[in-house]
Amino acid sequence: MNECSETVARVRYKDTDQMGMVYYGNYFTFFEIGRVEYMRERGIAYKNMEREDDSYIVVAEASCRYLRPARYDDLLRIRTRVSESRRRSIRFAYEILRHDSGEMLATGETVHIICDREGRPKSLPEKYRQLFPLKSQVGAKREPSLR
Amino acid sequence: MNECSETVARVRYKDTDQMGMVYYGNYFTFFEIGRVEYMRERGIAYKNMEREDDSYIVVAEASCRYLRPARYDDLLRIRTRVSESRRRSIRFAYEILRHDSGEMLATGETVHIICDREGRPKSLPEKYRQLFPLKSQVGAKREPSLR
Amino acid sequence: MNECSETVARVRYKDTDQMGMVYYGNYFTFFEIGRVEYMRERGIAYKNMEREDDSYIVVAEASCRYLRPARYDDLLRIRTRVSESRRRSIRFAYEILRHDSGEMLATGETVHIICDREGRPKSLPEKYRQLFPLKSQVGAKREPSLR
Amino acid sequence: MNECSETVARVRYKDTDQMGMVYYGNYFTFFEIGRVEYMRERGIAYKNMEREDDSYIVVAEASCRYLRPARYDDLLRIRTRVSESRRRSIRFAYEILRHDSGEMLATGETVHIICDREGRPKSLPEKYRQLFPLKSQVGAKREPSLR
Repeated sequence: MNECSETVARVRYKDTDQMGMVYYGNYFTFFEIGRVEYMRERGIAYKNMEREDDSYIVVAEASCRYLRPARYDDLLRIRTRVSESRRRSIRFAYEILRHDSGEMLATGETVHIICDREGRPKSLPEKYRQLFPLKSQVGAKREPSLR
Repeated sequence: MNECSETVARVRYKDTDQMGMVYYGNYFTFFEIGRVEYMRERGIAYKNMEREDDSYIVVAEASCRYLRPARYDDLLRIRTRVSESRRRSIRFAYEILRHDSGEMLATGETVHIICDREGRPKSLPEKYRQLFPLKSQVGAKREPSLR
Repeated sequence: MNECSETVARVRYKDTDQMGMVYYGNYFTFFEIGRVEYMRERGIAYKNMEREDDSYIVVAEASCRYLRPARYDDLLRIRTRVSESRRRSIRFAYEILRHDSGEMLATGETVHIICDREGRPKSLPEKYRQLFPLKSQVGAKREPSLR
Repeated sequence: MNECSETVARVRYKDTDQMGMVYYGNYFTFFEIGRVEYMRERGIAYKNMEREDDSYIVVAEASCRYLRPARYDDLLRIRTRVSESRRRSIRFAYEILRHDSGEMLATGETVHIICDREGRPKSLPEKYRQLFPLKSQVGAKREPSLR
């Protein structure tokens, strides 16, 4: 299995703002698309993690670096990989490229805590373990927590 | 009590699109603000209708007429009233004006069905009745339904 | 050429609200996707209408009837056709279906005025005429206007 | 003048997702509200920076740490300050608190480059200098750039 997942999404008029580019907060929706497709490629529909296994991937941290503006109707290529995975947390890394030219438009990261319906941290169920093999970032000291 | 509720909201950069005006689908968020404040003025926090009384105001129809564009940083005045109220449905009418000039920017309507958590239609609990006194639109024939 | 255009879009987490379904204002984004793909199928990239021909398809009216809730991760089939076309205005009709089951989830309409960059109504350039052959709705009396 | 600006915004239904909390990408809209009000308190309407002075505050980096979920209808207190200011870049720091309880819900940062209409970096016009007095972060090495 490829370490990296790639999916394509088109910029909607709705995503733009009056600067004529994608609103900065909307890149996080493209990250969402990236990590959901990352899981789907590995046989997991995230909605079933919520419904059947009471496991919610709650966001604890998110960041984005904007390199070049994504514009209306651009086809974006979203590249997603897991850069760190622990018992109770997962870190995704993203790259957003313009599909046609291959230019890098943005990079980012999100860190997630596994929680149950009530928002209490829990361990990721065993069946999802192979999807997120344990992997530590060099230099990372501790698991993030929600508070 | 005034029949009409008025509240003010400012257009965010996020609300605009590359035409330099508010994206057409975002006017429905201003309608949402209008009807929530309409209820709050009458002593009801909509969130408690959901939480405490298992009553969800589900949208069955929505429409908007766009007269003049709302623009970034505009202060909007949202005028809301109940134009029709029946045992299981409520119709709101809205006007959106530019606060400073008083120009009319948009008008619209939404029709709602009262539902429980599972999406089953139900009657509005008695305690909310006085908030929405029964009122029929002239010419209206029947209650809308979800399907 | 088929009168109707069909395209598929997936519901994102971002599109949902705490009722666990697509927020009512977000259906208008699916309508946007529908009409942009309708044009693309006929050889027109809407962004070029704006850029090269100073022709903006400004929304004058929009409406939606919600039949059944669209939910997170649903694949939606968006069916779009032109129900009316005049010199300065176009009316689109939409149907949104759940792709797998074929259930109808919502129907809607939008009416558009052709405008230049400054928002002044203009006639649709000749080259787009064949895309929107003149067609009147039975019973329609007059062209809509922006004010 | 207080170093910090505070403004209040209410969570809309539109802002929530099916987890019953504010969608993670929407916190960046609250940051936007914070920095616009920060400027307004100091006598600057950001829209005029764009319109009259051809100065766009383009986002180069954004990050958020989510501590506790913001929920529907919550009144949020957004605290904004400038943590760094250079000739061509500005860094804002944000805190989002639940207005009633004072609980900290999220913290974040955005870094901005001053650009003209065409997206070319430029220096901030003199008249805005006093709004953003030069200030370096300890340990910061260099100005960020868009590519």
